[in-house]
Amino acid sequence: MTAAQPSNAPLNIAITTGEPAGVGPELTAQALAAAGAHWPDAHFTVLGDSGLMAERAKAVGIDWAAQQGRHIATQHHALAAPAQAGKLDVKNGPYVLDLLDAAIDGALAGTFDAIVTAPLQKSTINDAGVPFTGHTEYLAERTNTPRVVMMLAGTGARPLRVALATTHLPLKDVSAALTVDGLVDTLRIIDHDLRHHFGLPAPRILVTGLNPHAGENGYLGREEIDVISPALQQANGLGIDARGPYPADTLFQPRYLNEADCVLAMFHDQGLPVLKYATFGEGINVTLGLPIIRTSVDHGTALDLAGTGRADAGSLIAAIDTAVSMARNRRAA
Amino acid sequence: MTAAQPSNAPLNIAITTGEPAGVGPELTAQALAAAGAHWPDAHFTVLGDSGLMAERAKAVGIDWAAQQGRHIATQHHALAAPAQAGKLDVKNGPYVLDLLDAAIDGALAGTFDAIVTAPLQKSTINDAGVPFTGHTEYLAERTNTPRVVMMLAGTGARPLRVALATTHLPLKDVSAALTVDGLVDTLRIIDHDLRHHFGLPAPRILVTGLNPHAGENGYLGREEIDVISPALQQANGLGIDARGPYPADTLFQPRYLNEADCVLAMFHDQGLPVLKYATFGEGINVTLGLPIIRTSVDHGTALDLAGTGRADAGSLIAAIDTAVSMARNRRAA
Repeated sequence: MTAAQPSNAPLNIAITTGEPAGVGPELTAQALAAAGAHWPDAHFTVLGDSGLMAERAKAVGIDWAAQQGRHIATQHHALAAPAQAGKLDVKNGPYVLDLLDAAIDGALAGTFDAIVTAPLQKSTINDAGVPFTGHTEYLAERTNTPRVVMMLAGTGARPLRVALATTHLPLKDVSAALTVDGLVDTLRIIDHDLRHHFGLPAPRILVTGLNPHAGENGYLGREEIDVISPALQQANGLGIDARGPYPADTLFQPRYLNEADCVLAMFHDQGLPVLKYATFGEGINVTLGLPIIRTSVDHGTALDLAGTGRADAGSLIAAIDTAVSMARNRRAA
Repeated sequence: MTAAQPSNAPLNIAITTGEPAGVGPELTAQALAAAGAHWPDAHFTVLGDSGLMAERAKAVGIDWAAQQGRHIATQHHALAAPAQAGKLDVKNGPYVLDLLDAAIDGALAGTFDAIVTAPLQKSTINDAGVPFTGHTEYLAERTNTPRVVMMLAGTGARPLRVALATTHLPLKDVSAALTVDGLVDTLRIIDHDLRHHFGLPAPRILVTGLNPHAGENGYLGREEIDVISPALQQANGLGIDARGPYPADTLFQPRYLNEADCVLAMFHDQGLPVLKYATFGEGINVTLGLPIIRTSVDHGTALDLAGTGRADAGSLIAAIDTAVSMARNRRAA
């Protein structure tokens, strides 16, 4: 009602086009060809080499220059070496990081309301001599965030959302990585971000067990008793509506999911196969706990499809849609 | 063409009605009310207390006596104590095992072509003083089978089938339980039973990794390199079409599943959440590697629903359907 003028300005969403040999540039062009219609309140800043963008857009039948205007602007960052679709070149590792750094700095400065990241190739950056384990870890480090939470989600009226208590760990190390404090922090982050960025006034979180059948009262493992249940009690004491631990193989059923805004799974392969099966090509990745909003596609660089136009922009469109919605919610809060 | 006369006899399928306080008896009555139409070539021997069957069938509107005849016969085993819906009684633990023993003995003797098991309550049997970890383990022991494989499946023209390399183990013990020999045996059993009981002349098996992203070339765990890949090589050498290891979160996608007859997952919560999500109430459990055919529902005794008629017979109908189909295939082989 009494919104100051900046609230009426269009949302400014940064899109990092990622690995230049991959499908990121063309998917960005394809996704934004629909931007005027889908997101009238958003402006998109596309971070990438403008020549590369023009070329890859053309390859999929889009005149990139004609797309520039009120809704779309390309922020040019020069490639270090010419980029060929499908062919990684270690010389462009620093270019990929440049895009990411510019997006993060802009988001921290308030220029960007959210960042959407197209896929990058970890090996290109590592081979260029920069240690890099992934977008999520890099964003946490660059924003001085001690703990972030990876959440994958579908879109739609009742989207399935799956957050992970642990992410890219060898399976045998998962048990030792779970702590009461860590789980409470994770639940706190999920609860906070679902309230403030997803417009959910009372988020309901369902939590899996670690072991088969959630440990069957200790018969199949004790982490539910020793770690997960105490964490749930503490979280409940903080006003967080988190319930469990539930057996993972029965939790992903309508009678549970209809009562949930998010599932917290204990590890990667417990939560993501079903999430990806359910969202089928339209899943997205959201990093919770950052001071900035960041969403991402849930697929890789698809080098074999780059330049062909055969890659599916569904996940990127969903990632943009979620970023816009999160930015709207944060602005309204 | 030259089938001996016994091949024209109806298939004789045993159904153990399981825990008498649970939904097994009424689901059996409900499932078989459709038997004449669905399985004209099968005869069903229902193992349970005939008074109990009459009572629970009546509770769901079925006249059990009128159902007896060419397609259905009740093999009476007396309850040790009166059974009340929803109320476990340890005195009936031995009764539940009686049903199972009679079914196994009949199947080993060739009287039964397959066994379908309704759910039992492990605690009732254990509390009665008989160590019992589950149907599958009991069947293996009673038939002197050194290794069995648990496979869950949907039904339909292209059913999703997920077999497990390990089953009811604490998560932290999974890595140590995986061995090259064990995986080769498991693949051999899956390949054999899919050929002989599922009518698949050239089964294609896709195998998951153990770690996130199948270990990312050893960066997230070494079991793929040290155990799974060598097992796949050995299995391939035996003529088994098994491929992998694939990341579990990308394997359950049409582009992979359309090329597969079965997925072998490394552990319970890697394979079953997605299987149960996909099959939604019509999933079944098949024990591979036994000298007899055995299928089961994928749900428990649902004590809270017993006697109400509100439990869904979908999984039991699917289990019967699969048992009949497997028995047909074995007879035709």
